Amino acid sequence: MPQLGLLPGRAWTVLLGLLRPPPGALCIRAVRSHSQVAEALFASQLKPHQEKSNFTIKTPKGTRDLSPQQMVVREKILDVVVSCFKRHGAKGLDTPAFELKEILTEKYGEDSGLIYDLKDQGGELLSLRYDLTVPFARYLAMNKVKKMKRYHVGKVWRRESPTIVQGRYREFYQCDFDIAGQFDPMIPDAECLKIMCEILSGLHLGDFLIKVSDRRILDGIFAVCGVPESKFHAICSSVDKLDKISWKDVRHEMVVKKGLAPEVADRIGDYVQCHGGISLVEQMFQDPRLSQNKQALEGLGDLKLLFEYLTLFGVAEKVSFDLSLARGLDYYTGVIYEAVLLQTPVHAEEEPLNMGSVAAGGRYDGLVGMFDPRGHKVPCVGLSIGVERIFSIVEQRIKTFGEKIRTTETQVFVATPQKNFLQERLKLIAELWDAGIKAELMYKNNPKLLPQLHYCENMGIPLVVIIGGH
Amino acid sequence: MPQLGLLPGRAWTVLLGLLRPPPGALCIRAVRSHSQVAEALFASQLKPHQEKSNFTIKTPKGTRDLSPQQMVVREKILDVVVSCFKRHGAKGLDTPAFELKEILTEKYGEDSGLIYDLKDQGGELLSLRYDLTVPFARYLAMNKVKKMKRYHVGKVWRRESPTIVQGRYREFYQCDFDIAGQFDPMIPDAECLKIMCEILSGLHLGDFLIKVSDRRILDGIFAVCGVPESKFHAICSSVDKLDKISWKDVRHEMVVKKGLAPEVADRIGDYVQCHGGISLVEQMFQDPRLSQNKQALEGLGDLKLLFEYLTLFGVAEKVSFDLSLARGLDYYTGVIYEAVLLQTPVHAEEEPLNMGSVAAGGRYDGLVGMFDPRGHKVPCVGLSIGVERIFSIVEQRIKTFGEKIRTTETQVFVATPQKNFLQERLKLIAELWDAGIKAELMYKNNPKLLPQLHYCENMGIPLVVIIGGH
Repeated sequence: MPQLGLLPGRAWTVLLGLLRPPPGALCIRAVRSHSQVAEALFASQLKPHQEKSNFTIKTPKGTRDLSPQQMVVREKILDVVVSCFKRHGAKGLDTPAFELKEILTEKYGEDSGLIYDLKDQGGELLSLRYDLTVPFARYLAMNKVKKMKRYHVGKVWRRESPTIVQGRYREFYQCDFDIAGQFDPMIPDAECLKIMCEILSGLHLGDFLIKVSDRRILDGIFAVCGVPESKFHAICSSVDKLDKISWKDVRHEMVVKKGLAPEVADRIGDYVQCHGGISLVEQMFQDPRLSQNKQALEGLGDLKLLFEYLTLFGVAEKVSFDLSLARGLDYYTGVIYEAVLLQTPVHAEEEPLNMGSVAAGGRYDGLVGMFDPRGHKVPCVGLSIGVERIFSIVEQRIKTFGEKIRTTETQVFVATPQKNFLQERLKLIAELWDAGIKAELMYKNNPKLLPQLHYCENMGIPLVVIIGGH
Repeated sequence: MPQLGLLPGRAWTVLLGLLRPPPGALCIRAVRSHSQVAEALFASQLKPHQEKSNFTIKTPKGTRDLSPQQMVVREKILDVVVSCFKRHGAKGLDTPAFELKEILTEKYGEDSGLIYDLKDQGGELLSLRYDLTVPFARYLAMNKVKKMKRYHVGKVWRRESPTIVQGRYREFYQCDFDIAGQFDPMIPDAECLKIMCEILSGLHLGDFLIKVSDRRILDGIFAVCGVPESKFHAICSSVDKLDKISWKDVRHEMVVKKGLAPEVADRIGDYVQCHGGISLVEQMFQDPRLSQNKQALEGLGDLKLLFEYLTLFGVAEKVSFDLSLARGLDYYTGVIYEAVLLQTPVHAEEEPLNMGSVAAGGRYDGLVGMFDPRGHKVPCVGLSIGVERIFSIVEQRIKTFGEKIRTTETQVFVATPQKNFLQERLKLIAELWDAGIKAELMYKNNPKLLPQLHYCENMGIPLVVIIGGH
């Protein structure tokens, strides 16, 4: 039933509820062809302009505009993420899009070549930020902040070869939550994993799993397997590939490309193919070789405590101790983790997506100290949500199900069927705006009624005020 | 009165309302000195790190971090702005931080030298966006969009000599609202001015005035005063300085630096020192010289209509026809406007701030056509809110009044006075989080009660759950 109402002080005013338009109404069809005619007329009136561009109009490689539809989806995702960060008591922080080039140097290992530098136009040498973690550490050191729980949502830039199908861009959003400060072990770390669970559940992306490990355990494994310390880094980045290529290929790389003895590689293989829950932690404690390594024992002790806290948080079953997890970035020093979606599409008509990890993080106790002139350390642990990949998944789902998204929040449309009612419409809509009501009208002196109603229908505007006189 | 409550399934749980802490409570003082001791202890434990940085840790020139306090202020301002944009039916849009260099070329006149270029690292030549208007026009042309009402909140970058006192930065936020499309005259333009009024009123910045003029009127004045057409642009940028320097100085620049005949300058002076309401528009219609100029007449006709609509919107008294208004940017083609705050500080103890304009905009009917390969025009009108300047004013006010800002939204703090209650605290806080309640606890195995209450007081957390056992 349409809602009807009369507003005072007009000749007449009808407030119509249009939430459910009359099914298959003929008038709406008429409007459609009418507006097509109008558009054709409009196009024919345009005169070619003198200054013609002689280059392709596009966004830079690996970047994109977000359309109003996409903005709505992104805002919904960011809302879930930021609400969760705030639920855990995080403060907001913002840093500039670029940093002094030196700030970013030697923080990202092999990936440093992907940093965007700014042109030297006189003055400081600058680079676009590559993540939100290094600027956070710079902020802590610069302001001598010893304790802080902050979130940061912002764009970062990486000159990667974009494979856009997988939701990889050169400009993308990161949503970071980090806890800086000296605290009792594993309590903040467990909260980070709890947050990842809350967000991934809250976004309804289907089942997921968080792989955890510890840099110290990995280093311990390399040590007891007989990897020379000079090769730790190279072998670590081979292990990092285990989520993309098979152990056989990784082993081949270790032996042939990185010159590791085959028996050393095999020993590593025995470890890094293991994954499981708290019981695997216990098993590793009993491991005759690994239990001799101090670093590994520290890491295992922390993981045991972590699983205890995760059980109290009710999320232990979402977390798997996975010895193949290595994480690329240089700055991690302890616990590391990475969340992957498990689901294959629920509905057969959905195209499957290769998504990679959707969230990741870890402990980096040395990064702030690298910026502090006196080397003062501030231990940190944090996580980053990969919203772009999540965005691709949600967008794909919306396409599949043909969901319609409202791109405006307009509540009321001010319409008239009569000529010479612009003044009344303008007065009325100003009253609505001043009362905080989201309202629109057609920017025409004498619009026809049907295009006005057509617009409401197209835009999903639930109410229309129709004014007129005798 | 503190609120008291018992939660089921614990030994005991007390829910305390701490919104108003007991005045001058001795225990809080004790906590303060306690935490100072703890901090001193913490500092002494830090060991100097090997890798010391040998450069100054800072943000790039003209940029800054926003602290959690500043983030809260900025978010409140952006909330008022974006709510208003949505009230007027605008859709969101996002564009990349950088554009192809060519896109920005020849759009900003003399200011083009302020554009940040990216280093050529192979591939496309890129520049950071200088405003949100040119990317919007590029988006419309690229996607052949003929009609759109959009808002965009985002950072832009300009290599200006930063005079940070006035709230001018090299990286700053812009909040833009634009209406693209062929519509009946002055309806969208009037809405833009209405929006500026709503936002400036909504932010409670005190009294303000919006100066309006029209590029065609200014060109008409130059023509009838005898300025050679080749000098229009130079003389226009002299006029643009009238809000900073006196007419005497502007006249001097016109005659001595730009080679204008003194009598021509005097004729211009008669015009550009005029300002008033709708009556000045009528007066200019009667002006024997100006009424001979076709362009000026078009501009005056539009301004007359504009004032009519502004009266219907109830904002005409906030708007002044000001012939000294010129606006720097090249792309304006019709109506132009600029909002200035009128107030001197209400309270004597506030330091006065030189704020310049806080919002501005105008009509740019040719910009989209510059990007369209066939030169198709899409008329546009829009406005930009200068949030950084508004931010400076609001921040200054908060400092003056010593307002305390909460930087987190935490509702409940989970505390205990007893040892060995970490497990209970973790279980309880997970329940709160899962119920959507914003909650925090101390990351310590056995915290003392007073530091926990002290934290609540400092952070303005209104409720504390205290759990314990017999």
